[in-house]
Amino acid sequence: MSGTRSFQAPKGTRDFYPPQMAVRRHIEEVWRRASIDCGFEEIDGPTFEHLDLYTVKSGEGIVSELFSFRRAGGEDDYALRPEFTPTLARMAAAKGSSLALPTKWFAIPSHFRAERPQRGRLREFFQWNVDVIGLGEPDGEVEVIEAAVLALERLGLDPHRVQVRLSHRDAVAALLTSLGTPEPSLPAAFELLDRFDRLPPDEFARRGEALGLDADSIARLRASVVAVQPMSEPAGAMAEAMGVTAAQLASIEPLQERLRRSGLLEWCTFDPGIVRGLAYYKGIVFEIHETGGAERAVAGGGRYDGLISLVGGPDLSACGMGMGDVVLSLVLRDRGLLPADEGESLLPRPDAFAVALSDDAAARLPSVLQGLRRAGLHARSSHRASRNLGKLLADANKCRARFAVILDAGVAEGSATVKDLASGEQSDVAIASLADELAARIAAESAR
Amino acid sequence: MSGTRSFQAPKGTRDFYPPQMAVRRHIEEVWRRASIDCGFEEIDGPTFEHLDLYTVKSGEGIVSELFSFRRAGGEDDYALRPEFTPTLARMAAAKGSSLALPTKWFAIPSHFRAERPQRGRLREFFQWNVDVIGLGEPDGEVEVIEAAVLALERLGLDPHRVQVRLSHRDAVAALLTSLGTPEPSLPAAFELLDRFDRLPPDEFARRGEALGLDADSIARLRASVVAVQPMSEPAGAMAEAMGVTAAQLASIEPLQERLRRSGLLEWCTFDPGIVRGLAYYKGIVFEIHETGGAERAVAGGGRYDGLISLVGGPDLSACGMGMGDVVLSLVLRDRGLLPADEGESLLPRPDAFAVALSDDAAARLPSVLQGLRRAGLHARSSHRASRNLGKLLADANKCRARFAVILDAGVAEGSATVKDLASGEQSDVAIASLADELAARIAAESAR
Repeated sequence: MSGTRSFQAPKGTRDFYPPQMAVRRHIEEVWRRASIDCGFEEIDGPTFEHLDLYTVKSGEGIVSELFSFRRAGGEDDYALRPEFTPTLARMAAAKGSSLALPTKWFAIPSHFRAERPQRGRLREFFQWNVDVIGLGEPDGEVEVIEAAVLALERLGLDPHRVQVRLSHRDAVAALLTSLGTPEPSLPAAFELLDRFDRLPPDEFARRGEALGLDADSIARLRASVVAVQPMSEPAGAMAEAMGVTAAQLASIEPLQERLRRSGLLEWCTFDPGIVRGLAYYKGIVFEIHETGGAERAVAGGGRYDGLISLVGGPDLSACGMGMGDVVLSLVLRDRGLLPADEGESLLPRPDAFAVALSDDAAARLPSVLQGLRRAGLHARSSHRASRNLGKLLADANKCRARFAVILDAGVAEGSATVKDLASGEQSDVAIASLADELAARIAAESAR
Repeated sequence: MSGTRSFQAPKGTRDFYPPQMAVRRHIEEVWRRASIDCGFEEIDGPTFEHLDLYTVKSGEGIVSELFSFRRAGGEDDYALRPEFTPTLARMAAAKGSSLALPTKWFAIPSHFRAERPQRGRLREFFQWNVDVIGLGEPDGEVEVIEAAVLALERLGLDPHRVQVRLSHRDAVAALLTSLGTPEPSLPAAFELLDRFDRLPPDEFARRGEALGLDADSIARLRASVVAVQPMSEPAGAMAEAMGVTAAQLASIEPLQERLRRSGLLEWCTFDPGIVRGLAYYKGIVFEIHETGGAERAVAGGGRYDGLISLVGGPDLSACGMGMGDVVLSLVLRDRGLLPADEGESLLPRPDAFAVALSDDAAARLPSVLQGLRRAGLHARSSHRASRNLGKLLADANKCRARFAVILDAGVAEGSATVKDLASGEQSDVAIASLADELAARIAAESAR
């Protein structure tokens, strides 16, 4: 015991007071609704997993980026989940052949990264995960992208403000090979490309040379990476700009056709510079970026056929996406799509705010509140000792209540006064029918 | 890399597949709605805290019950949160004098305990926390209990099946002192009482003796602990049965009066054996138990005045409660209040299930789905290649869809057939007005 001292949240984590929590719930509800409307079903897993679930696919190198631990006296190594895909793969694997295909799952868990906090990257964050198991390319990807776009649209974004930037790892591999990258260096070349935007040009060149690319190849690679085009362009033009043959980019046409049919084409850009850092991705990969280019990726995803069998399950095709709350919130705030008041206006509005103007009324107040609450209404009261109606109604307005329920001398005859705090209209209502009356008025209001 | 191997969730944690997740969401939504209806506002904090936030109030002894860790290369000790009250106290302390009083907060985070998993106790669980800061006894407690009871009632429980068992630490302290417990042994005596139900009688006696109680005192203590009475009994009778003076139990009468006014009296029992293990509780303490006595406590709470100042904040009165999902789910299941199908029937029902009976129709299907989804409808389709209407409708019924949208030759004229899967009625609808039509039918159905 150290007496009085002050404590803070761990670096890179957040305290959510009611306004901040209202913003988080707003985003999570849009994610959840979009997932359900698109036919995904919600799952969740443990906050921590056996450490080797993460090392099996990413190697020991990932350990320094994890919060790992043992139980006192225990022998198992655990880690806080840095991403959800390994948990999802483990859960799919555990179902084995009983898993109905396709399976469309979503989850909104917290994730943890033991790296230095910076803009857009925290040590604890929430991430929407959307995955399709058992659909091949491009059907699975389009299902995932449709859900992502639906959520972004409901949050107020449009194709002018955000774009899904898609590429294909096979085409990028063909490009790298044609430029002279030896097969064993391809994973390292993908990692290098993933950092293209963040590396100074000469550092990019130096690292490219170390992978076996000469100066001319690096120049051509640089030109390819920036050959960004609207997804509605002919596939042949894309291949030419990227410097691969039409055959090497053959898989882009079915993707374009599926995106077109689902009304998603205008949301999408072909971007050969997108490769994604994660080792297990194959085929189509994508990131969602705000078009201004100021922030990190809002979301990223791709195909991970083979991962489920790696963790003991059947050999299933699978693809998915993760969208974190931190960068998304920055983008929404930049674009004026979150309340300027930090979230106060997103807090739930009370349906009724009950005030008592006499001792008799005050004695009756708790049962009036209980009656309203049992009827499913959000009901509050003032905790002031005041009997001043003006002050009490100021409390009601401060929390944006819809109706004030004023208890005064009328309680002796079982009557209260209901005041509509928007219109100012008021009328007497029997206390016994208060809940029905208010529920009816609120239903009528929301039907308008 | 170790090739194909199988992985499992860490011991004492859970995988939530869609049906289990639907059950969890059902319970969490009842908790959330009850909190909001009672005027509580939602907060959240980090999943892990600095370790000393837990040791400052509970001592070093708690460390063995925690999952604690450091970041690789870091110097700070962290622990996964075993309970939410320290985080809440820290957050209240950080607001200092700017915190509006009273403040009513709730949270539904996950919690972690590094102990051996057993029935009703897991290593990761979800807990509903309901707290009132700035209201004294008994007003704060009644606000908390009202929210708890509202949630339990909405989950299908009633006063015959669960009871809030209340006691008062001051009265129990007076009893222990009158029986000869030296002042410094009171905390240990509280801990012993907290285990009364779980210790064999002679072990209870042996430990009581070690605290300075003679055989006669132990017999009287045993009689006091079981002097359980309905909360509606006169306070004098309770004091007598418990073996304390009316003055020593004086604080029970205002509590009874407040519970009566809020219509909660029948949900409550006076139980002198309730003391709560946590060191920081004072005054009124309570647990919620199912009346059969088969399970652990569904919830527990009490007053923790002084805790907020201990972590650096102002000296504020505060009380609260935690209700975990594990024991609650066992009680609900025992009582038949959760679906017998493990949750399948709680999964979200699709509003529309679209099927295509021709190639032209299949080409149109994605845009029909997108139109329904953008309108806020939950829309699915079959992923079978089949054009057999019977098989496709079987898929629609399997996921309990409300309407089937059948696309066939009519798509050429922009028309689809809508079939109500409950009544079997069907009619042709223009594809352009499908979403409006279905939304109107669903609204009419839910208004009935």
